[in-house]
Amino acid sequence: MKKPSPYHRLEKRFRRLSAIGDAIAVLHWDWSAMMPPGGAEGRAGQLAELAAVRHALLVAPEVEELMEAARAGGGLDEWQRANLGEMDRQWSRAVALPEDLVAAMVRAQAACETAWRDAHPKGDFAAVLPSLERVLELVREAAAAQGARLGLGPYDALLDGYEPGARSAEIDTLFADLEAFLPDFLGQVLERQKGEPDVIVPDGPFPAERQRALAVRLIEALGFDFDHGRLDESRHPFCGGTPDDVRITTRYDEDDFTKSLMAVLHETGHALYERGLPKAWRGQPVGQALGMSMHEGQSLLIEMQVCRSAQFMAFAAPVMGEVLGRSGPAWEAENLRRLYARVEPGFIRVDADEVTYPAHVMVRYRLEKALVAGELKLAELPAAWNEGMQRLLGLTPPSDREGCLQDLHWYDGAWGYFPTYTLGAMTASQLFDAAKRADGAIVDGIGRGDFQPLFAWLGANVHSKGALLPAHELLSQATGRPLDAEVFKNHLRRRYLG
Amino acid sequence: MKKPSPYHRLEKRFRRLSAIGDAIAVLHWDWSAMMPPGGAEGRAGQLAELAAVRHALLVAPEVEELMEAARAGGGLDEWQRANLGEMDRQWSRAVALPEDLVAAMVRAQAACETAWRDAHPKGDFAAVLPSLERVLELVREAAAAQGARLGLGPYDALLDGYEPGARSAEIDTLFADLEAFLPDFLGQVLERQKGEPDVIVPDGPFPAERQRALAVRLIEALGFDFDHGRLDESRHPFCGGTPDDVRITTRYDEDDFTKSLMAVLHETGHALYERGLPKAWRGQPVGQALGMSMHEGQSLLIEMQVCRSAQFMAFAAPVMGEVLGRSGPAWEAENLRRLYARVEPGFIRVDADEVTYPAHVMVRYRLEKALVAGELKLAELPAAWNEGMQRLLGLTPPSDREGCLQDLHWYDGAWGYFPTYTLGAMTASQLFDAAKRADGAIVDGIGRGDFQPLFAWLGANVHSKGALLPAHELLSQATGRPLDAEVFKNHLRRRYLG
Repeated sequence: MKKPSPYHRLEKRFRRLSAIGDAIAVLHWDWSAMMPPGGAEGRAGQLAELAAVRHALLVAPEVEELMEAARAGGGLDEWQRANLGEMDRQWSRAVALPEDLVAAMVRAQAACETAWRDAHPKGDFAAVLPSLERVLELVREAAAAQGARLGLGPYDALLDGYEPGARSAEIDTLFADLEAFLPDFLGQVLERQKGEPDVIVPDGPFPAERQRALAVRLIEALGFDFDHGRLDESRHPFCGGTPDDVRITTRYDEDDFTKSLMAVLHETGHALYERGLPKAWRGQPVGQALGMSMHEGQSLLIEMQVCRSAQFMAFAAPVMGEVLGRSGPAWEAENLRRLYARVEPGFIRVDADEVTYPAHVMVRYRLEKALVAGELKLAELPAAWNEGMQRLLGLTPPSDREGCLQDLHWYDGAWGYFPTYTLGAMTASQLFDAAKRADGAIVDGIGRGDFQPLFAWLGANVHSKGALLPAHELLSQATGRPLDAEVFKNHLRRRYLG
Repeated sequence: MKKPSPYHRLEKRFRRLSAIGDAIAVLHWDWSAMMPPGGAEGRAGQLAELAAVRHALLVAPEVEELMEAARAGGGLDEWQRANLGEMDRQWSRAVALPEDLVAAMVRAQAACETAWRDAHPKGDFAAVLPSLERVLELVREAAAAQGARLGLGPYDALLDGYEPGARSAEIDTLFADLEAFLPDFLGQVLERQKGEPDVIVPDGPFPAERQRALAVRLIEALGFDFDHGRLDESRHPFCGGTPDDVRITTRYDEDDFTKSLMAVLHETGHALYERGLPKAWRGQPVGQALGMSMHEGQSLLIEMQVCRSAQFMAFAAPVMGEVLGRSGPAWEAENLRRLYARVEPGFIRVDADEVTYPAHVMVRYRLEKALVAGELKLAELPAAWNEGMQRLLGLTPPSDREGCLQDLHWYDGAWGYFPTYTLGAMTASQLFDAAKRADGAIVDGIGRGDFQPLFAWLGANVHSKGALLPAHELLSQATGRPLDAEVFKNHLRRRYLG
């Protein structure tokens, strides 16, 4: 038998790394959706050990040697070259970190997440501060080490882990553009809303099992396949699992079905991206999704561009009434569309509308940059948070529960992640705009509950490409322009002032 | 900082191995209880890669070196010495196997399990034969390699993996003893049953959620802690997960609540053993359960010795009536006791009563010995199975669904496991007998739904000892006698002819 080439030996190694990563993903899902509280300590240990094992397999000397040999050997096709590039990217980020730091981060994040679960409902930031300080200390250590290796500043080193190639200087420019636009625009939208008739809010209660049945109906229409996925409950909605076994979650508020439903539709956007990744490249770096902006671009394309549109409501309103067993003026498509397009500044990011959402992101983006740079101390975070909210949205949270304790991200070790939400909103706008221009049947299809034309375009232009191209290149190829705020701003103008 | 000793470096390594093992256990549970069918291929890959990683970490040269250094260094206490002994046992079994064989076995088992899930309902043995042949081929390869290393015959090498120290020659003797006893005894029991008034079978339907509520009530009374465990549904009841997050499953038949309930109580016996393992030794080999005979001894102690007793029924019958919303003669404790003590030869092992169960085990034990030895071909299995059933129970299965396809074990790679069920029944009898002699409050407690005295004894004499002693030594210390069939036979005589 011929000895496998260096490239094929790398594929074997990365198949193993991917399997460990998939196992970690399932264990994370289980933690959030299934695990009893007494399992937390053991689970944290499992995740830390798997992360350390994964790290050790990735930074083993033979990986670097094999990558050099594979590059020198040549003869690779486009996908294989991109795969090798992604391997190198993963390796470069990992080799900067000692194994002990990797395991310590997982443990510190798990401890802090557990502390946060207790402190969040009480709004008790002081209770979680020591564990958060430990998390940030390790994150800064990792950021410095990765930054030194990659020639990036510490914050960019973190950002690059979620959004390969992104730099905070570019984000600053994009966000400055939006910030110049949004406050005025928000004022106009609120002014206009005042002059409109009241939206009728459907009266609850809506039993959780009916809400679930409604969600199942709509996500099956979108293409979610329960032979390859699950819908469960967790405190915070998320999409986890693996491409062939995608696990999305939501939580049900029996007084208000609208948030839960839209959360499920959002996660379905993530799920369908994962499902659409190139099957031939399962388990290889090039077969994985691009960064978080493209991922959030998929979820926001479904949630914001598609599911809050008049066309989608024309299809979905009768289904909602039928499955929830209601009828009347509140259940008219136009009322539901307006319900889902209401703009109102609020404290909570995950409840924010499309117009005020970027302000939430900008507050966090500035704060996390300052915290990582050491220019802000964690003890000063609550005050700095409240000041940011006051400045951008004119609101001061009544307690840290509605302030700096509301998101799990930082407590869970996700630093440098927040800006991708708003990059994702821009990405979603640009992609949907290009899709509609490419195929006139897309919008009509949505109105009939036929999403095939939309997913045909997304499949061909985004999902099936995996990580073949860098995100900015894929976006340019798919939409004809680099990422900017223009299409997003036009979308907002059309929807809220049109 | 002082360099960690060889022994402590081993503990660190085995903590990692244990964490990977725990992750595998959760992924297995998920497969059976949660995973959508489309996840099977990916999950098989995850399990194979984790098994290979675990194997590689266990057989790495430094483990052998560290074990030698730890032994030479001395200064270890009793638990540490036992821990080192268990490490050596795991290492010796693993080092006999090449990593590729380990991964190939996991993959072959997963493929065969998938084929079995399809073939079982159809009774189509031919459909699963090729994948089963692959499984047996690899099992025999592993058995030969491990046997050569451990100085055991191939079957004993497999058996030793489930029941350390057990040898088929001893099992032959124990089983011969039982086989000399059971046929006559069964005849007497059936004769006696004929002369008794009919048992009243409670009429269904019993909605699954009511059955679940009943199970929860009773297992909470036994001490099952939902902060450290779950109860879910799967095709076959099992106990999985980890000591601090024990996952038991059952399936509900809405026409008959009795089987599901007893299955949950059985798995609770396993679960409480896991929960009671010494907390200080979590993640170390000595902190794990003894072999399958002791594990099955715990589940059968709860199911057969405790929960089918008159005392338990006095406590449980009113709870059953209350939670299922029924009353009348069928729900009297004595009727339910007799219902749960009915003896009737049947085709299906998992539905068998206490008296006929050993016959099912003996059929499988002989067949698997012959198959591993190469004295029987898999193609001949259906006929050999039916012949064995005819000889021992006077029954011929109508199809392979009720015959050699009924159990997942062989298809899933568990060879050398079956005899531990009957060793477990003997173990359970001996332990319960000793417990009752040691503390007169145990039986009274059961009648009041107070299981604290029982678990105090089990905790002190079995659970908290982990793998400190070999199973036969622990049993001798706890009960004053080695494993034999006498106490079990006496128990059967008392219950069925007393």
